[in-house]
Amino acid sequence: MISIVKSDSLIGGIEAGGTKFVCAIGHPPNDIQALERFPTTTPEETLGRTLDFFQNQPRLPDSIGIATFGPADVHPDSETYGYITSTPKPGWSNTDLGGVISRELQLPIVFDTDVNGAAVGEYLWGNGQGTKNLLYLTIGTGIGGGALVNGKPIHGLVHPEMGHLFLPRAEGDDYEGYCPFHGTCLEGMACGPAIEDRWGIPAKSMPPDHIGWSFEAHYISLALVNLILTLSPERIILGGGVMQQMHLFPSIRSRVVSHLNGYVQASELTYEIDQYIIPPGLGSKAGVLGAMGLTIQFL
Amino acid sequence: MISIVKSDSLIGGIEAGGTKFVCAIGHPPNDIQALERFPTTTPEETLGRTLDFFQNQPRLPDSIGIATFGPADVHPDSETYGYITSTPKPGWSNTDLGGVISRELQLPIVFDTDVNGAAVGEYLWGNGQGTKNLLYLTIGTGIGGGALVNGKPIHGLVHPEMGHLFLPRAEGDDYEGYCPFHGTCLEGMACGPAIEDRWGIPAKSMPPDHIGWSFEAHYISLALVNLILTLSPERIILGGGVMQQMHLFPSIRSRVVSHLNGYVQASELTYEIDQYIIPPGLGSKAGVLGAMGLTIQFL
Repeated sequence: MISIVKSDSLIGGIEAGGTKFVCAIGHPPNDIQALERFPTTTPEETLGRTLDFFQNQPRLPDSIGIATFGPADVHPDSETYGYITSTPKPGWSNTDLGGVISRELQLPIVFDTDVNGAAVGEYLWGNGQGTKNLLYLTIGTGIGGGALVNGKPIHGLVHPEMGHLFLPRAEGDDYEGYCPFHGTCLEGMACGPAIEDRWGIPAKSMPPDHIGWSFEAHYISLALVNLILTLSPERIILGGGVMQQMHLFPSIRSRVVSHLNGYVQASELTYEIDQYIIPPGLGSKAGVLGAMGLTIQFL
Repeated sequence: MISIVKSDSLIGGIEAGGTKFVCAIGHPPNDIQALERFPTTTPEETLGRTLDFFQNQPRLPDSIGIATFGPADVHPDSETYGYITSTPKPGWSNTDLGGVISRELQLPIVFDTDVNGAAVGEYLWGNGQGTKNLLYLTIGTGIGGGALVNGKPIHGLVHPEMGHLFLPRAEGDDYEGYCPFHGTCLEGMACGPAIEDRWGIPAKSMPPDHIGWSFEAHYISLALVNLILTLSPERIILGGGVMQQMHLFPSIRSRVVSHLNGYVQASELTYEIDQYIIPPGLGSKAGVLGAMGLTIQFL
């Protein structure tokens, strides 16, 4: 296991989501001294409320982790580190989220994607404990993945965008897909809005025996197979609104085993699959705890 | 850039392939003092010739890197580190390749997959120089991939097996696939023997305007798209016999750009794609140089 924060370090976290921001301060995971949620509106208003939150605390944190929606520049040595770059979200393209926070509060920040934050949170305090190579995939309004290799998030040319994997169609599935960029990619076939678009009812209203869940398990399981073949994670955590349908887990697990067909030999991919593909361990504070977890490398 | 070997370190390398073994000793990449190739027969005979090669040198190396066919146990802290595990190659299952070499020669070894070795070799001395996140994919008799994240090969639950990604079929392609495990996975659709099986002529005899090359570019480009979305590599090197068909490169590059459709914004994925997806820089010694490169982390 890795060492956790110095006992006297006060940590800040910002979960910067496309729908809402969550700010927190404290000693994670258990001692959260203040937490505030507010909707994501304009950059000016939203960053203003974020700064207010921290400036109104009895003490500023020693550092702040920011787990953001994207695409974002997560390379510490880049000139635009801390920027949300080319997002389709109106008004937010080329927003220097990390820079504003760091300059206004005069604090070091760590800036990463929301899914890398979630992976780090689960790795430190949730169901990813005990691994060094962890995959976190969230399936909700969108689909995104964060992966740790040797205990660190992957940053490369840009950052992973695992929600957009290209996968074989399910037999009998002729849906044209929901993704404006790729049509029938994973997100295009399996995100919450795609489910609602194709079946005419929201995912959460679909009964467990609806044919749509079989398609859903098809795409998620094939994505996991490709991610296993690429990253060889020691554990996989599936979060997000769609995965609150717990009946998806056994259905996804059995398909992963069946698709791999014994090629990769590991007990985790056969009789221990129930402990390999699992839900998150952190509850409603998962996002902001993950953001706070990003700062751990500083301490 | 990373530091290279101590100038007085003598390095050994073993490229342990399913068809041939290549052994070398020297100061890579330029000063190779001896190199020998021989066919892979039984484990006893092949390991015997390998030991003979090193024992017949004027001096034993300080360490030996072994880049092996697989599946293999590449976890240094595992009880079966250094084993070839569940290979279909007759006689080689559960062969303690690394252990025999290390014990008989009383030398430290580094044991990794052939594709991780190739990636390390290109990273140190070939066309991967200047990156930290590199993807190497070989397309030949089989298909395999090695990836460096933060300059180190990925090891996780097992090791990556990128040759077996599940991909959408090309339009009009009804080939049943060549992979005994997965049928129509990347290797099943695009390895050399699959090309020969479906078209009735060896890949190297197919003219550049053969429809088969269009299918080939389809599967390789979709695999690269999925690997880009997962690993975000800073550069991609495509090696192996099939990739000696240089006309594949422009065809693959333009499809990668087209599939991604502007979603991941980076000059490397648009107008600089010619410098992003490239052939290997090391020649016929690439495999054994990669094996030697695996030891660099020791020094």
